Amino acid sequence: MELKIELTTAPKELPNQDALGFGRIFTDHMFEMDYEEGKGWHNARIVPHHDFNLNPANATLHYGQAIFEGLKAYRTPDNRITLFRPTENMKRLNNSARILCVPEFDEEFVLDCLKKLVAIDERWIPSKPGTSLYIRPYIFSTDPYLGVSVGKQYKMAIILSPVAAYYAAGFAPVRIKVEDKYVRAVIGGTGEAKTAANYAASLHGDYVAHQEGFAQTLWLDGIERKYVEEVGSMNIVFKINGEIITPELTGSILPGITRKSVLEVVRSWGMKATERRITIEEVFEAAKNGTLEEAFGTGTAAVISPVGELCWKGESIIINGGKTGETAQKLYDTITGIQTARLEDPFGWVIEVPKA
Amino acid sequence: MELKIELTTAPKELPNQDALGFGRIFTDHMFEMDYEEGKGWHNARIVPHHDFNLNPANATLHYGQAIFEGLKAYRTPDNRITLFRPTENMKRLNNSARILCVPEFDEEFVLDCLKKLVAIDERWIPSKPGTSLYIRPYIFSTDPYLGVSVGKQYKMAIILSPVAAYYAAGFAPVRIKVEDKYVRAVIGGTGEAKTAANYAASLHGDYVAHQEGFAQTLWLDGIERKYVEEVGSMNIVFKINGEIITPELTGSILPGITRKSVLEVVRSWGMKATERRITIEEVFEAAKNGTLEEAFGTGTAAVISPVGELCWKGESIIINGGKTGETAQKLYDTITGIQTARLEDPFGWVIEVPKA
Repeated sequence: MELKIELTTAPKELPNQDALGFGRIFTDHMFEMDYEEGKGWHNARIVPHHDFNLNPANATLHYGQAIFEGLKAYRTPDNRITLFRPTENMKRLNNSARILCVPEFDEEFVLDCLKKLVAIDERWIPSKPGTSLYIRPYIFSTDPYLGVSVGKQYKMAIILSPVAAYYAAGFAPVRIKVEDKYVRAVIGGTGEAKTAANYAASLHGDYVAHQEGFAQTLWLDGIERKYVEEVGSMNIVFKINGEIITPELTGSILPGITRKSVLEVVRSWGMKATERRITIEEVFEAAKNGTLEEAFGTGTAAVISPVGELCWKGESIIINGGKTGETAQKLYDTITGIQTARLEDPFGWVIEVPKA
Repeated sequence: MELKIELTTAPKELPNQDALGFGRIFTDHMFEMDYEEGKGWHNARIVPHHDFNLNPANATLHYGQAIFEGLKAYRTPDNRITLFRPTENMKRLNNSARILCVPEFDEEFVLDCLKKLVAIDERWIPSKPGTSLYIRPYIFSTDPYLGVSVGKQYKMAIILSPVAAYYAAGFAPVRIKVEDKYVRAVIGGTGEAKTAANYAASLHGDYVAHQEGFAQTLWLDGIERKYVEEVGSMNIVFKINGEIITPELTGSILPGITRKSVLEVVRSWGMKATERRITIEEVFEAAKNGTLEEAFGTGTAAVISPVGELCWKGESIIINGGKTGETAQKLYDTITGIQTARLEDPFGWVIEVPKA
């Protein structure tokens, strides 16, 4: 397929690098591609960033057939542009597509378009340590009909947003509420996909947790309400008695790319890293007998997010004295170092984006 | 709040009443109202039907904070316009709002706007028996940001679509697959709300069922996979040994207004009607011992949808010889009779819409 490129005639002013926030400012251009039954994916284009014109019966606004990805472009100290494992995002977006009955796309072609888009908007990639350009590829159904069914029309888009350093003032371990009333996802549902439904389902629990003063929610499984699943919109990792443990991918957990990278990095250090079901009782028990050394979330936005406290049914455990653990810090330094090419990349994870 | 009205200067041609389909044709006007944190709901207006201009970061396209309702306006034989229990739809939309952390609205005011909209587009209400004007009120978040959180901006809209008779050629009992792999909703999730997430979660199972030649999916509970929950996007009702039985509202089942009406109607006939958990084994057992007399779905679109066959793990039961049962037929005749004022309304369910 051909990629058409139409450049803006009105480039915007770059934002102040100290006031970027997350996902609020968008660059000059975006990628779009359309799908129609019988015609397949077509009309791939990079165009000036613009609003969508959607029929009020647009199926996504009513029935949520929508999937997305999140990754980042980094500016290296020597002014090159890198992406971290972007083929994994393409693969996962197609996996989400299969789960949500969205038509699959050519991963190599879309990744190529993504790189060209990043290259065109390269001036928007901030240089301040910790900042980056957040990349949001997504697909949603555009059928202008109210019948509930698998869509026949879709739009894929990629938008770019320069984002602030997640930890401008250094790591700040957070207080997390273990949720025992609300459920994010259940086996047989959409938990494994990066899809709107899982985020909608997490809103109420998150809202209540925030009202109670917690930063995030730790989700338990929807069946027995005892197995740890995810934290907020990140995966969760524990260090118990020197061993790295993270919930195995049962079907209701998002297969995080940072999660996967963390497992590979710690194993490369010679640490034992296990994917298995782990109950919240086991975590609390480990805290009480002194073997719970660390807990942290893993995800694209924060990379590593240390957990200082877990509260379950009114009982709290403080983890590592509420401070960032040694492994969390070392993982953060290593992965962000690799992402920004400040450290060597022994895994072959980093891809350089050729400049326009 | 004031309702502003701007009438179209280009009224569309009315569609052929024999080719309406469902939710594909829209009327001349729509209702809109906006919400902003700190300002509340404001700018209620009836305006010409038009597309939405949405930021590509629109939160609903990514995170699915969207709720809706469905009801119908009917043209009576003496040319009056009726609505069926619309206050129930307003109440349920606000209940969905609470579950999805959407700001609540003034039910009386919105119902009044809805009636005015129907009156303005009255010429679109078809007159052929069985046809009606489908009414879709909905609310979705419009925050143009990529952070996952409860929205601060929303749009409420009401759109109208003239729809065909569901059973143009008489009742046709359908073949239903009892789904044992995919799950629509689980307790602690969003199953009780009329929200995008539940429909997205049903797509894959429905798709597989259609591929296998079934018309719909019967969903089991997400925990034990044995309790009957819903069928397609309807509630399910059984008649076993003369008793009407429908799954009780556990929190993962949509509280259907037709379901509620069916219970009230059969009770007014002196029949025993029970809301309780019922396992799929019990249904199959009743079929085998000859006490399963009827099964049917209930919902706004079809009112009553007779089930002729249920297939679970490859085993099929034929219900009432694959024919529409006496109770299903009588309920359909009674409820549609009340809706269109062809029958007396002893329940006080029907509201007349004053013409413009």
